Amino acid sequence: MEIFKQYNELLNPFLEDFKITKSPQNLYLPIDYILELGGKRIRPFLTLMAAESFGANPKEALPAALSVEVFHNFTLMHDDIMDDAPLRRGKTTVHEKWDINTAILSGDAMLIRAYQLLENYPAQMFVKLNQLLSRTALEVCEGQQYDIDFETLNNVSQEDYIEMIRLKTAVLVGCALKMGAAVAQASEVDCQLFYDFGIQLGLAFQLQDDYLDAFGNPETFGKQVGGDILENKKTILYHLALKNGNKLQQDRLNELLNSEDEIAANQKITEVKALFEITEARSATRDLISHYMKKADEKLGAISISEEQKQKFVSLKQWLMNRDH
Amino acid sequence: MEIFKQYNELLNPFLEDFKITKSPQNLYLPIDYILELGGKRIRPFLTLMAAESFGANPKEALPAALSVEVFHNFTLMHDDIMDDAPLRRGKTTVHEKWDINTAILSGDAMLIRAYQLLENYPAQMFVKLNQLLSRTALEVCEGQQYDIDFETLNNVSQEDYIEMIRLKTAVLVGCALKMGAAVAQASEVDCQLFYDFGIQLGLAFQLQDDYLDAFGNPETFGKQVGGDILENKKTILYHLALKNGNKLQQDRLNELLNSEDEIAANQKITEVKALFEITEARSATRDLISHYMKKADEKLGAISISEEQKQKFVSLKQWLMNRDH
Repeated sequence: MEIFKQYNELLNPFLEDFKITKSPQNLYLPIDYILELGGKRIRPFLTLMAAESFGANPKEALPAALSVEVFHNFTLMHDDIMDDAPLRRGKTTVHEKWDINTAILSGDAMLIRAYQLLENYPAQMFVKLNQLLSRTALEVCEGQQYDIDFETLNNVSQEDYIEMIRLKTAVLVGCALKMGAAVAQASEVDCQLFYDFGIQLGLAFQLQDDYLDAFGNPETFGKQVGGDILENKKTILYHLALKNGNKLQQDRLNELLNSEDEIAANQKITEVKALFEITEARSATRDLISHYMKKADEKLGAISISEEQKQKFVSLKQWLMNRDH
Repeated sequence: MEIFKQYNELLNPFLEDFKITKSPQNLYLPIDYILELGGKRIRPFLTLMAAESFGANPKEALPAALSVEVFHNFTLMHDDIMDDAPLRRGKTTVHEKWDINTAILSGDAMLIRAYQLLENYPAQMFVKLNQLLSRTALEVCEGQQYDIDFETLNNVSQEDYIEMIRLKTAVLVGCALKMGAAVAQASEVDCQLFYDFGIQLGLAFQLQDDYLDAFGNPETFGKQVGGDILENKKTILYHLALKNGNKLQQDRLNELLNSEDEIAANQKITEVKALFEITEARSATRDLISHYMKKADEKLGAISISEEQKQKFVSLKQWLMNRDH
């Protein structure tokens, strides 16, 4: 998005200043490393956008924006250990490039640094942002724990799954937006509406992520279509197929998604996707995404900002949901 | 110490209230577990003592005291992973009882909960305590990183080693005391003096720990005398022996402390201790401890509290340094 270019020009020099060049290098270099892997920086941009939408100078929101981004990358550093992931954004993960102990300790330091960034604000604002960060951070830990727990549970309901992604993904989107609104001294009502908008947007985005992994256009999706299926991931499609399917379909799905390479990859993807179609998990997922998108629109509509400002969030929403990038 | 009994009666119910009984249990149970392992609770007691020494009700310092204790136990949970430690206070460590991922994630949640405890204070106090916690927490991470780095470095100076234990151990003692003074609205000068007293006390305590591990009385020490030597730990005795010894002694010490069970345990301990004696590392360590104890006394002497209150810290200091418990 065009607007991201301007925000990047604000964020990048601020990020450069944030870096710690002091020793011990083994503590601080991995922090710079993971932050330099980039990513789309959607969360900090949301903070800047929300602040600007109330007429504030986005520069004022930079410490909060970077706090959210540093916190997010802390979760990636620790999650990558837990998932035993070799790559992050195409580059070696911190625990692979250094070791697990380094990734634990540098991650801890990042969480502390996320808090320290908020020290840029006056006392009352600091308290507000700090409490929001703590609440959000603890919820993200809960979400990650549920995600781990659910991998080995067989009775996870649709509601449980939605609650897990709300905690793991959506609350940080809400937090990013609310921080921007708070920095701009928006009313409590508007801060909460932006938070709620972020929750709905975050849910829609994560469900779309599950959906596109199975049904995205291979030419524009970027990743291998069917990757989640090959990794036996229990996405919303899986949970809805289990909920809606008959005993035979349920058993076959569980059989397929517990198998380890016994079935050829293409055959496995094809059969699982057929089960997602026939159980109507595919259409139910699309309905769910529409549902959360509509709720996001409602929340956005109620915020006391100009139509012109709202339009920017509508564009962003479309850009986020249309994953050709 | 008699005074600890009273503080325990304050701290224990507060700790009970702090516990989170909500789900996900796999996130929150390990937090209760490590906090229930006990330990001497010296850090939170220091916070309560410092607050009381200025005439404040120690109850007011409970959230800060518990924040320090929760933070300390977070570091233990993550350090135990890094050290691959099977036991903590005689009980199975969290990463052994659950798994590494649980210990990482529950540890993260503990760090966040340590920050949240400070939300009990009004804005200005919250800011002050929060900034102190962040600064201290980052320094503790730096100390842990230096500790890891030093295990594989051969040119660590006495000054480097002292700086490492200042960061890893002493700053949290200083932080605990300063938080108590701050809660009691003590002057900036007194807050800083209590912090400095904590640094000197923390250094003396940690050096004493190194000393007693090799030269403690086996009947009262509690742990196996020579444990550090058997684990090839590079303590202050090692660094001073290397600094003061001749080439032959240096080489022999490095040979002994890089060996893996090739030498019988008793023989190894006896020979290393003899090297600590002959290079005068033993007496130099005692001198260092006296040096930091004296500096601690100076700082304590300058604090604007009554002689009666100071006497409590003198008793505590003696209790801490006389490790028959």
